[in-house]
Amino acid sequence: MKANILTFLGCESSYEDAEIVIFGAPFDATTSFRPGTRFASSAMRNESFGLETYSPVTDKDITDLQIFDAGDLELPFGNVDRALTMLEAQTNQILEDGKCPCMIGGEHLVTLGAFRAIYKKYPNIRVLHFDAHADLRDSYLEETLSHACVLRRMWELVGDDRIYQFGIRSGEKSEFTFAKEHTHMYPFDFEHLDEVIPLLQGVPVYVTLDLDVLDPSIFPGTGTPEAGGVSFHEVQRAIVTLQSLDIVGFDVNELSPIYDQSGVSTAVACKTLRELLLAIGGKKK
Amino acid sequence: MKANILTFLGCESSYEDAEIVIFGAPFDATTSFRPGTRFASSAMRNESFGLETYSPVTDKDITDLQIFDAGDLELPFGNVDRALTMLEAQTNQILEDGKCPCMIGGEHLVTLGAFRAIYKKYPNIRVLHFDAHADLRDSYLEETLSHACVLRRMWELVGDDRIYQFGIRSGEKSEFTFAKEHTHMYPFDFEHLDEVIPLLQGVPVYVTLDLDVLDPSIFPGTGTPEAGGVSFHEVQRAIVTLQSLDIVGFDVNELSPIYDQSGVSTAVACKTLRELLLAIGGKKK
Amino acid sequence: MKANILTFLGCESSYEDAEIVIFGAPFDATTSFRPGTRFASSAMRNESFGLETYSPVTDKDITDLQIFDAGDLELPFGNVDRALTMLEAQTNQILEDGKCPCMIGGEHLVTLGAFRAIYKKYPNIRVLHFDAHADLRDSYLEETLSHACVLRRMWELVGDDRIYQFGIRSGEKSEFTFAKEHTHMYPFDFEHLDEVIPLLQGVPVYVTLDLDVLDPSIFPGTGTPEAGGVSFHEVQRAIVTLQSLDIVGFDVNELSPIYDQSGVSTAVACKTLRELLLAIGGKKK
Amino acid sequence: MKANILTFLGCESSYEDAEIVIFGAPFDATTSFRPGTRFASSAMRNESFGLETYSPVTDKDITDLQIFDAGDLELPFGNVDRALTMLEAQTNQILEDGKCPCMIGGEHLVTLGAFRAIYKKYPNIRVLHFDAHADLRDSYLEETLSHACVLRRMWELVGDDRIYQFGIRSGEKSEFTFAKEHTHMYPFDFEHLDEVIPLLQGVPVYVTLDLDVLDPSIFPGTGTPEAGGVSFHEVQRAIVTLQSLDIVGFDVNELSPIYDQSGVSTAVACKTLRELLLAIGGKKK
Amino acid sequence: MKANILTFLGCESSYEDAEIVIFGAPFDATTSFRPGTRFASSAMRNESFGLETYSPVTDKDITDLQIFDAGDLELPFGNVDRALTMLEAQTNQILEDGKCPCMIGGEHLVTLGAFRAIYKKYPNIRVLHFDAHADLRDSYLEETLSHACVLRRMWELVGDDRIYQFGIRSGEKSEFTFAKEHTHMYPFDFEHLDEVIPLLQGVPVYVTLDLDVLDPSIFPGTGTPEAGGVSFHEVQRAIVTLQSLDIVGFDVNELSPIYDQSGVSTAVACKTLRELLLAIGGKKK
Amino acid sequence: MKANILTFLGCESSYEDAEIVIFGAPFDATTSFRPGTRFASSAMRNESFGLETYSPVTDKDITDLQIFDAGDLELPFGNVDRALTMLEAQTNQILEDGKCPCMIGGEHLVTLGAFRAIYKKYPNIRVLHFDAHADLRDSYLEETLSHACVLRRMWELVGDDRIYQFGIRSGEKSEFTFAKEHTHMYPFDFEHLDEVIPLLQGVPVYVTLDLDVLDPSIFPGTGTPEAGGVSFHEVQRAIVTLQSLDIVGFDVNELSPIYDQSGVSTAVACKTLRELLLAIGGKKK
Repeated sequence: MKANILTFLGCESSYEDAEIVIFGAPFDATTSFRPGTRFASSAMRNESFGLETYSPVTDKDITDLQIFDAGDLELPFGNVDRALTMLEAQTNQILEDGKCPCMIGGEHLVTLGAFRAIYKKYPNIRVLHFDAHADLRDSYLEETLSHACVLRRMWELVGDDRIYQFGIRSGEKSEFTFAKEHTHMYPFDFEHLDEVIPLLQGVPVYVTLDLDVLDPSIFPGTGTPEAGGVSFHEVQRAIVTLQSLDIVGFDVNELSPIYDQSGVSTAVACKTLRELLLAIGGKKK
Repeated sequence: MKANILTFLGCESSYEDAEIVIFGAPFDATTSFRPGTRFASSAMRNESFGLETYSPVTDKDITDLQIFDAGDLELPFGNVDRALTMLEAQTNQILEDGKCPCMIGGEHLVTLGAFRAIYKKYPNIRVLHFDAHADLRDSYLEETLSHACVLRRMWELVGDDRIYQFGIRSGEKSEFTFAKEHTHMYPFDFEHLDEVIPLLQGVPVYVTLDLDVLDPSIFPGTGTPEAGGVSFHEVQRAIVTLQSLDIVGFDVNELSPIYDQSGVSTAVACKTLRELLLAIGGKKK
Repeated sequence: MKANILTFLGCESSYEDAEIVIFGAPFDATTSFRPGTRFASSAMRNESFGLETYSPVTDKDITDLQIFDAGDLELPFGNVDRALTMLEAQTNQILEDGKCPCMIGGEHLVTLGAFRAIYKKYPNIRVLHFDAHADLRDSYLEETLSHACVLRRMWELVGDDRIYQFGIRSGEKSEFTFAKEHTHMYPFDFEHLDEVIPLLQGVPVYVTLDLDVLDPSIFPGTGTPEAGGVSFHEVQRAIVTLQSLDIVGFDVNELSPIYDQSGVSTAVACKTLRELLLAIGGKKK
Repeated sequence: MKANILTFLGCESSYEDAEIVIFGAPFDATTSFRPGTRFASSAMRNESFGLETYSPVTDKDITDLQIFDAGDLELPFGNVDRALTMLEAQTNQILEDGKCPCMIGGEHLVTLGAFRAIYKKYPNIRVLHFDAHADLRDSYLEETLSHACVLRRMWELVGDDRIYQFGIRSGEKSEFTFAKEHTHMYPFDFEHLDEVIPLLQGVPVYVTLDLDVLDPSIFPGTGTPEAGGVSFHEVQRAIVTLQSLDIVGFDVNELSPIYDQSGVSTAVACKTLRELLLAIGGKKK
Repeated sequence: MKANILTFLGCESSYEDAEIVIFGAPFDATTSFRPGTRFASSAMRNESFGLETYSPVTDKDITDLQIFDAGDLELPFGNVDRALTMLEAQTNQILEDGKCPCMIGGEHLVTLGAFRAIYKKYPNIRVLHFDAHADLRDSYLEETLSHACVLRRMWELVGDDRIYQFGIRSGEKSEFTFAKEHTHMYPFDFEHLDEVIPLLQGVPVYVTLDLDVLDPSIFPGTGTPEAGGVSFHEVQRAIVTLQSLDIVGFDVNELSPIYDQSGVSTAVACKTLRELLLAIGGKKK
Repeated sequence: MKANILTFLGCESSYEDAEIVIFGAPFDATTSFRPGTRFASSAMRNESFGLETYSPVTDKDITDLQIFDAGDLELPFGNVDRALTMLEAQTNQILEDGKCPCMIGGEHLVTLGAFRAIYKKYPNIRVLHFDAHADLRDSYLEETLSHACVLRRMWELVGDDRIYQFGIRSGEKSEFTFAKEHTHMYPFDFEHLDEVIPLLQGVPVYVTLDLDVLDPSIFPGTGTPEAGGVSFHEVQRAIVTLQSLDIVGFDVNELSPIYDQSGVSTAVACKTLRELLLAIGGKKK
């Protein structure tokens, strides 16, 4: 008798065969307002039962891809440094085995752990950042390792003009000032994404998608809901445009199931991840 | 002393005088993901207290129509065949008495019960289907009587080119393939509804409205929320265009109040039904 | 040791220095459907922690303004007359001290209390009313002091052509008829706001914003959610246009936190109030 | 076709044949903390579907009694005086027709309306009061018609030594002092009920049961939960002892369904009412 | 890289080594009131993270046992016959392999499927039944395969005097009459369990534990909460007494996570199952 | 105009006059299962509105005491060391000013911060620990500063036989072994408290009350609910026995309002704290 194991949406490839490796990063220790993102990956595996593997928008099917779901890391609570180190190690292993890591956060700070491994392998990396918040603070409540500082920490690695930010509609004044000098920020919506995609051809790209870039009407289940966001249609269209890029790693983050009583946010996160997997996968022959 | 009886939104005509007869179909036994639609009709009666009978969009008032609310059928749980038979009998009785049946689901499979009676009286019937899901599977988990198969079962009755489907954005690949050959499917939105309405003049029409055609932002309270749906404005506009048709029966379905903590989905279902009643009623003099 | 006191979003001016004075009006005794707005001001103070003081849309910051948060009035439950008298007295005091009152409801009836003081000082006042509901009934369940009658009561003070209503999409037929003769009603949306703003230059204006003017997708947490409303973007744009007016008092009302399980409605209310404060404040030098 | 009408737990007698008449009093305007009891009677009708009509404790069955469910009164919101007058009139009618009124609150103040009619017919009445709160304040927030004052108002009618209070565990110090002089108060539990029952033989008795006398572990769904209450077993045992009394009217009150997410409180309220009906009914031949 | 697989509370033995085999039976199609038990096994695996493997009451530890968690069966929705057949087959397989089946329901009807296999192997079986409801109806809403009939169906297999029922406090009068003649029913509590345990020595025993035997104060998350139940202490003590028996199969059922907003019911179900596993396991050397 | 400031239950003394100083410790970064205790102090201030200041059990009133509510500390998220340092400093200041600190957690680890200051001033201190969990691990997920280790860390300060633990019903086997050698542990209930109280006369005592010592039926709103706990009556009785002790500091912790949908847990926490304040305060003349 074999156990019937829960994976994300029929991602049932073996590790060896897999092109993409999913893993969960259940961590929310620096969340400043409402915690709970630690439950995101688990909730998404459960709720993906209600989602089809087939996408009529792109006429692709998850079951045609080779994806391995590695389950969740067991991260220490309250020790930010060690959690980031474990995330870096996991990402590193996947990269070394020639596969594309797909991390499910967790709070946005987890991106830093994964990205350290990405940057080591791809020093030429560009970052595509979709988010409601700039996440460019130098420190938050005097802490430098905070979800509110994650893009700032990533900028310290890659330097100027490597980070492209879309959908940003919240932050301190100083973050918007910083962005003007050091990143490419296109606030409020995805209008200028079509101009950016051509610029990213031929270089490795990391995509970090904070799901709170979506309007809270369609994505209420997050720690810091920020009205005035993009629609699901806009996210879906944006993801389709990513197909032409050489994406070497990606993550979705900031789903907080305890604020998602209707389950809609989790369903939206699952569908978003399905579209991302369909856009990014299927390239290795 | 007379009892103060709860009905849907002032639908207080006698059965004899009624042009339209509402009844509830509290059934969700084949729901594959999240059950609860059995409570929809009861919730809608309670919540319709918060809704006006007057519609400023169409300048019509429910209190000017003759509508009888028959309450809920007492359907057996877990016996799909018998439940469908009871729904068919109830619909048949209403049709025989020269009235228009309006069923409040329940899961979408209940439509099959009502539709069997409709088809018997109106073999020339056309079906207008609004839904997020194609519901065209031949079977689901090896069952043929499933909410996921209801339009397929209806197609077996009416044959090719009698079913018009709008808003569909989810299904297996095979369902979309089936639709290309056998139904008129206009996926994703209602853009082409205006072209279809003229084609349906002069024939009897059945309308089945799965409320999950609405975007989950405005209608979270349903078993399988599917992002990327139509807005309430679009549903309201679509309903207005139905006024010119000869609608001989209709239903709304798939409201699941247990996933509607804010009550918004139930309020939306009530308003949608009000607009449907105003569009369809008022024709018999 | 000083207590760390909770105020709305860093509104920490002293009363003496303040240009705007916020106070809460926790009252919902005439709410006809789902109560709970009494908890709105308290919830907004708590949840404003998750909101930035800086608005990237207008490039302004709350910390640059002088705003005093006076906390909540302790209103009697079930005595409408006395509650209105207390609200009038509080507003009167603030006006006498040369400051601008900003009231957080509470059900919409609280506006009548504040407005009586406003009208006494500014008999020439105009009213800008954003709402899903007309609130123009002469009485509701035979009561004249009801949330459903508040604009009618205000009209009795100011007379014809002084009230401008936007976003209205619900009411009895008679209310729409009344509006045609006595108020300027622009139903359904804010399309005509730009035409009205120039007409209001140079006269004192009172703004009353019933948050249920927003679509329930983005603002579910209210007693009587009414589908088909405006988006947050539309509200934000409308608020920006208010900057040119001489607003002598304003309120936001009808947030009901007990129907806001995700917290999104409270977050939206906070952001809306932030934008209002930024649009209205900063004028006194 | 006859409508399938929702009543409480198979209480389907005609008014004419009925021995007991149930009616709902959806009113909570003076609720000082968390409102919502207005929805109690409606919720109890819906949830009584999950309850058997038979009680194995007393070996009696609701279907053997003649009980009419008159539905809910339509009480004005925010006008306490008028609501009380309507409750008095309804109770009066039932008493005049020789039947026993059973009122489902609403907040506890509704008892005053019903009791005025009771007292008029039975000036010799005794009151059995089960509650967590003394409800003996002279006024609350300067209002005399408040849920916190209802027993004080009833005392003003009946005078000293006519009111027996059980389970009281909360109040101002002055209320406990008042009770020592004017009522028979047995605080915290029902230990002394057996001593009191013999004293009440042969006189008419009114029973008012504030459901918050139950411990919040089993009855969380109420406006002011007060830890340290009695168990359901204790309430059930107490009700059985009432069988020997001449009860001429009774009410249950203070269920607030919006704080009863699991539905347990509503189920408990239904079962409590079933036991009360079985204890009080079945005497008229 | 190996996947980090979710199992119940560290039950990580291989199938081959296992003494006990857990499987989930996500089925609730005949649930008559509030569905949702289909999610129980999945919720229990997730929530068991918060529970220790060690029990200080019995000084035993789950990690000392050999238990395999086989995950959930994929049962058809709405087809009762086929679901029961699949449950019987699964149980049969486990029994054939010499292991003890432990099923997590689902609604109580799933017990019939498992029990058919048990009865085939152990025709001499006794049944220990803990429940709030008698479940002895011959049919419910004219259906014989219903959760309300499951013990009646099991009685049809085993005959008189083989079923011992504890904690029963709800049912139709006819069920209590039936029990008097055909089963050993000890209603309301577990007082007489100590007398029964000696009678069951040396015969194979099946234990079916409907978690709603617990009082809804500690176990609100179930479809039909019934006040007046036993405490967790009583359940724990009862389980300890089972250690002397030869239990050849067992199940826990009727947890409905959608009515368990606080998570307490799921935590209680997990702890109950831990105690059962510790009482029943550890006997094979 | 003075602001109407929110404090806990009428604790409105000035700092100077205060005998007891309350402060909130909104911190939950090491919470391993379900976070949210960071919101406890804020929720308790809001909900204490529903509680009387008078306790009929002890015939004492909060308004007769001098208590200052200092509001919440602004602790850094994700930096355990710094948070503990800030808590120690705050407690130190209160002790230096000759007052008794009363901390509202937060997760249980916050006790370590406060206790470091206590221990410095009172090296002879005894600890009374009420909890469901032993909290005696040396490390948890390799972290030594974790809520699961807090009593172990305190033991490292005070040494053997200074810590008295009551109500413990969960932990690893090794924790129970450790307790046998190093602390006085009385598991499961408070039965032996009366024997311990006399032993603690004349020495300074610190009381740390993890609210999850209560049974989850009455206290569901906590991160790790553990069935089989004590009743509210038992806690209340225990608190009364504390009156004879020389308590120099105390805390209540582990209320997690996001798992307290009914509000009962918060109400219970408020009432527990009221009883503690009444038992500990009123001694300084």
